[in-house]
Amino acid sequence: MTRVVCRPLAPRLGEFEANQRAVLDAIDAARDADILVLPELVTTGYVFHTRAEAADAAIGAEGPELAAWSAALTGDTVVVAGFAERGEDGVIHNSAALVGTDGVRAVHRKAHLWDREKLFFTPGDRPPPVVDTAFGRVAVLICYDLEFPEYTRRAALDGADLLAVPVNWPLVPRPEGERPPEVVIAQAAALVNRVAVACCDRGGTERGQRWTEGTTLIGSDGWVVATATTDDPAGARAELDLLAGRDKRLTDHCDLFGDRRPELYGG
Amino acid sequence: MTRVVCRPLAPRLGEFEANQRAVLDAIDAARDADILVLPELVTTGYVFHTRAEAADAAIGAEGPELAAWSAALTGDTVVVAGFAERGEDGVIHNSAALVGTDGVRAVHRKAHLWDREKLFFTPGDRPPPVVDTAFGRVAVLICYDLEFPEYTRRAALDGADLLAVPVNWPLVPRPEGERPPEVVIAQAAALVNRVAVACCDRGGTERGQRWTEGTTLIGSDGWVVATATTDDPAGARAELDLLAGRDKRLTDHCDLFGDRRPELYGG
Repeated sequence: MTRVVCRPLAPRLGEFEANQRAVLDAIDAARDADILVLPELVTTGYVFHTRAEAADAAIGAEGPELAAWSAALTGDTVVVAGFAERGEDGVIHNSAALVGTDGVRAVHRKAHLWDREKLFFTPGDRPPPVVDTAFGRVAVLICYDLEFPEYTRRAALDGADLLAVPVNWPLVPRPEGERPPEVVIAQAAALVNRVAVACCDRGGTERGQRWTEGTTLIGSDGWVVATATTDDPAGARAELDLLAGRDKRLTDHCDLFGDRRPELYGG
Repeated sequence: MTRVVCRPLAPRLGEFEANQRAVLDAIDAARDADILVLPELVTTGYVFHTRAEAADAAIGAEGPELAAWSAALTGDTVVVAGFAERGEDGVIHNSAALVGTDGVRAVHRKAHLWDREKLFFTPGDRPPPVVDTAFGRVAVLICYDLEFPEYTRRAALDGADLLAVPVNWPLVPRPEGERPPEVVIAQAAALVNRVAVACCDRGGTERGQRWTEGTTLIGSDGWVVATATTDDPAGARAELDLLAGRDKRLTDHCDLFGDRRPELYGG
């Protein structure tokens, strides 16, 4: 069993030092975690007004900032968290890194940019990275990426056991008693692919924007096993059997992947 | 607004006359419906033990049986229901027809066969048909077809406003208070495509098999608006704004279809 922890945080726009401290504190507080997931753009905040604001907040994936995450980790634990990335070519991305004690193992650049992010960031042009860890294979996606079932399928077909998804979900109306719509989509991704999903949302109010606080852990059977808000200092925590989802057989005659009919989906 | 009705029934294995009578009664009882959806294999029952049983129960799509459905309809109403089909080449399919007063407008042959269906039926080899009706464009899928998000996406990209889905959902365990997993998948299909979904399940117990009785109507906003079991003679009923889902814009900068990155999904 793998201990997965999502720790929602409330980053403050433009306050890199405070945000970085919160990340390092969260890593320290989750020492018992095998896989720790933190929100999207956790180093910078989200509600940029100009491209320059986003660019000014961006850091390199190979710089001292993510190296500090690595140094704060112990053992086989990995952390997945979002940051504004300045690529080697100077282009700015909404990215997330998977980091272990040995350093940055993968960087994912959000491929589906939400709303005004399109004004500030350049989208990634790759499938989600799927990273071998001591606990299973972890795919990294960011927020709106999750809402494209072809993209979550891609990660699953590429071998993911867990989708680690830093998010910033703007609060939208929903009927009383219902889960956030993004969680319903995440549950379906789990169900049709037999993968676990860990969505880590943010809190706080930023330039008037409120957030769903929808942090949710979902098993590879599609059911929600834990949720948390930023008021929960321990975050959402669960022991997940990540390897159980590798068997895609539903019955003697059915297999989630084998039953696909890709020749019927194109066009 | 379009009045969509799902009327769950409990067909009896091999009793064609009784099952056909129940279909005609359901059509008669839903005279106020614009679109009526009935279960999968509603003329035959489901739990075949041999290929011969399925073949013996099969009918042609152009024969008197579906013509009787057409004759029972009035006005612009259409019915979508499942039947065991003997194709012109003698091959047996798990099919569903969309029928109006003018006759059979489309036949869909289930493309994703569930479990032992693979022993008895030949799968279809086409995307879901999308049929123009007086009320909007209706796609026809059958049961397990719904669990392949690439296939529901195909229907949506082909212009569907409503997915009409005859199902026979075998009862599976789920946590207390949760909807059936198939409904979660249907809600996600609605959410990521802005299409309404009408799933009509069956009841009864057949050769020991129990059913979910999960009949559910879902709006193009992804929320459940009505459910019913076979104990509800009126079925699940709702007035749905089928055309509202045609606007795929989520924000000034986002569009559910336009934001897709198909070049990243292949391989």
